[in-house]
Amino acid sequence: MLTRVKSAVAGFMGGIMAGGSSGSGGNPGSELPLKFPYMRPDFLGLSPDEIECSADHIARPILILKETRRLPWATGYAEVINAGKSALNEDQACCEVVVARRSEGLVFHYWALFDGHAGSGAAVVASRLLQHHIACQLQAVIEILRNLASPPPTVLGEEPDCNPYLQGNTPHRALTRAASLRGATGAPGSPCSTPPPPRFFTEKKIQHESLVIGAIENAFKEMDAQIEREKQVFNITGGCTALTVVYLLGKLFVGNAGDSRAIIIRNNEIIPMSTEFTPESERQRLQFLGFMQPHLLGNEFTHLEFPRRVQRKEVGKRMLYRDFTMNGWAYKTIEDEDLKFPLIYGEGKKARVLATIGVTRGLGDHDLKVHDSNIFIKPFLSCCPEVKVYNLTHYEHGADDVLVMGTDGLWDVLSNQEVAEAVTAFLANCDPDDLHRYTMAAQDLVMRARGILRDRGWRITNERLGSGDDISVFIIPLMYAGLISPELRVPF
Amino acid sequence: MLTRVKSAVAGFMGGIMAGGSSGSGGNPGSELPLKFPYMRPDFLGLSPDEIECSADHIARPILILKETRRLPWATGYAEVINAGKSALNEDQACCEVVVARRSEGLVFHYWALFDGHAGSGAAVVASRLLQHHIACQLQAVIEILRNLASPPPTVLGEEPDCNPYLQGNTPHRALTRAASLRGATGAPGSPCSTPPPPRFFTEKKIQHESLVIGAIENAFKEMDAQIEREKQVFNITGGCTALTVVYLLGKLFVGNAGDSRAIIIRNNEIIPMSTEFTPESERQRLQFLGFMQPHLLGNEFTHLEFPRRVQRKEVGKRMLYRDFTMNGWAYKTIEDEDLKFPLIYGEGKKARVLATIGVTRGLGDHDLKVHDSNIFIKPFLSCCPEVKVYNLTHYEHGADDVLVMGTDGLWDVLSNQEVAEAVTAFLANCDPDDLHRYTMAAQDLVMRARGILRDRGWRITNERLGSGDDISVFIIPLMYAGLISPELRVPF
Repeated sequence: MLTRVKSAVAGFMGGIMAGGSSGSGGNPGSELPLKFPYMRPDFLGLSPDEIECSADHIARPILILKETRRLPWATGYAEVINAGKSALNEDQACCEVVVARRSEGLVFHYWALFDGHAGSGAAVVASRLLQHHIACQLQAVIEILRNLASPPPTVLGEEPDCNPYLQGNTPHRALTRAASLRGATGAPGSPCSTPPPPRFFTEKKIQHESLVIGAIENAFKEMDAQIEREKQVFNITGGCTALTVVYLLGKLFVGNAGDSRAIIIRNNEIIPMSTEFTPESERQRLQFLGFMQPHLLGNEFTHLEFPRRVQRKEVGKRMLYRDFTMNGWAYKTIEDEDLKFPLIYGEGKKARVLATIGVTRGLGDHDLKVHDSNIFIKPFLSCCPEVKVYNLTHYEHGADDVLVMGTDGLWDVLSNQEVAEAVTAFLANCDPDDLHRYTMAAQDLVMRARGILRDRGWRITNERLGSGDDISVFIIPLMYAGLISPELRVPF
Repeated sequence: MLTRVKSAVAGFMGGIMAGGSSGSGGNPGSELPLKFPYMRPDFLGLSPDEIECSADHIARPILILKETRRLPWATGYAEVINAGKSALNEDQACCEVVVARRSEGLVFHYWALFDGHAGSGAAVVASRLLQHHIACQLQAVIEILRNLASPPPTVLGEEPDCNPYLQGNTPHRALTRAASLRGATGAPGSPCSTPPPPRFFTEKKIQHESLVIGAIENAFKEMDAQIEREKQVFNITGGCTALTVVYLLGKLFVGNAGDSRAIIIRNNEIIPMSTEFTPESERQRLQFLGFMQPHLLGNEFTHLEFPRRVQRKEVGKRMLYRDFTMNGWAYKTIEDEDLKFPLIYGEGKKARVLATIGVTRGLGDHDLKVHDSNIFIKPFLSCCPEVKVYNLTHYEHGADDVLVMGTDGLWDVLSNQEVAEAVTAFLANCDPDDLHRYTMAAQDLVMRARGILRDRGWRITNERLGSGDDISVFIIPLMYAGLISPELRVPF
């Protein structure tokens, strides 16, 4: 499946050995050993020679899962390298049935895409290890997840229904003094009377699902912390976005930190399963942080946004602006302070935080700073994912109902609608019993997003520009949930 | 329309004269004069005697717009007082065609609901003045709004298309040094080359609509600042939510700060035009603020959330929690720090910020503190609204297509679906040419939410509890947009 055209990628093998630093600025850890060597996904089963060929920026061969190999649920996969923006493919992918054995064990299905920047190190490390952090977090609550008949206990080691406030304990001072404005309707109720009103003593019931969400959220943080620690002893370059899917309890948990995207296509309907985190979508969080912690802006940036840079000669004039409280725009009189560079600048794919980075969630990047300064991109760049849940048991899924995961290389050039139409049309023309059809559909998607090299540029339909970025796509059929590896199925 | 049953509301007239302090704690400004006397909406045309009768907590008469009076667009209105939680009705309403004359003048239609707490002062002041703050903000951009042919100029007094960066100015250092990670696909491009890449020099095009949104946002802030200033010289009790609708440029701009709600009902479809700001819906903003500015928590509160209060004997055990980064839950080992009272506590209508207030956006409340402490509720309580836009020119509206605005007294007991069904069914049974039908429909809604007094409680359909809160409802027919006052129509 790999076109064996070799082009001149200067120092390619050197790049692999050195961890794939893509030449974007200094690489202070480059004298350290690699945590993991550069790789393509294990499940592709590529030889070193094939891996080398895959990095051909001229031919841009589309790599797909071999017909002799199977992923869980007959998942399809395809990828292609960028058109030259980095020597190596900085996307990484992982698909596993994760089996963590301790006492009775834990099994979950797992898919993940990572899109690296400023080197492939963080993406490679995350693609090898994030699933184990998720397993570790889930292992801590495995007994609770197994017992769906009872809600998760508030305190471990206590009976879930044991409410200490019904047993005569003294409430906290803040309770007895609560002013309770805009309270429940009905009797006015004196908040200072004893016994205190029962409304303060309800116990929130947490769903099992929330424990899985919390486990994924904390696993991202642990992964990020591990990269930070191990950068001291290993060469782990750059950072990466992370998009993960965990199948557990009959549900898909889609965790996203970055600008990759997952959608479900079900009976021609599109269900978005993630939202992208970009300087524009996260503007108000970033401006709020800059406003409250101005030292993070290093006296060089302003948390205000302007439609373009302010010039010194404009001081005293009135110019459009907005701050973290606003979605609209208004005019303000320009002051010297406003001459600082805006925290968020640019539009669409060109938008940047601190003039540096175009994505606002991800793993790694701990030593990423504004060029020639001591201003760190963290904590503007956060490792915390958003997790969305899809209950597979609520619907009967057909053979053409799928979850599509793609890095931004796909979505930059194809809309949700275009992807859904392409996948639906492609699958309709395949033998429904051919389990390789999802990989062929993924290949078709990558081809549509990359396009054809013509007149020194990549072109897709309607003469639009194809994506010059790395592109990686999983297509996961929902009909086969849990069916492929019956020996691994567990009670939940 | 006012049932003349007088019940014993202790000190009622005294309450009116003193500004309607509802007895929730001290009232430090009570020796100051009132900014405005207690009132019901002017457009109801009530006599002082009728105003007194309207505050009957036993009869709870429903006040409606008299048939002889007309509001713009034939807007309908109805209200009822609470069942005893405060002496006066702390809701206020306003409906006006605002005409601000300066040079060529500005005209917009305006509707607003305010829901006060801890006194009626802030709600009365806001219902009298907020429209003038909006007018003032809009007046500053009136010439720009009038000129729809050109986009708003970035700098006032300059040609809108004059882009200084195309004229050879020196870019800022942060531009020339930009690392540009995860940049646009295509040529790698050296960010340090000259001339700098054009992508850094684009100018964001701002829509006219955004200026109206910005004007409304800043008007709320100005209104809040005026209340803060004037509390020094007037008795302005408590705080209030604010829900406003501005009609301008053929669009409805719905601004919301609080837990009132607006929906559009169009051809049996429900279009939400606001979202509520509550301790639960704003949890992550509030926890983020508490995490970053811990002094705001006064060493008494923790930004972490637990399903219930932590007890001292639980220190060292593992308990469910979540922080501002999480939507899910996980277990943590309890420390002494976790014994503090949670910043956000309780569920649904009982949820509170700092054990004090159940709404997280609104006007006023500048001296509101946690009882018996020096911990201020601001800035957790914010005055900034969210503004949503509905373009009236995109649809042909029928006589039964309406915008419904209601305070939480309505929505606490009736769902969007129930309100839509009730309004649609009611209007279908009215003479379409009877312009009083929208007020009758509003009366019907208030009746459905208040219910009937039975067995010492207010009951609605299916034996559910009726709302014991103040209830106020506008029903605005969309078909009559701009038609009622043709003499006031302006070019935009």
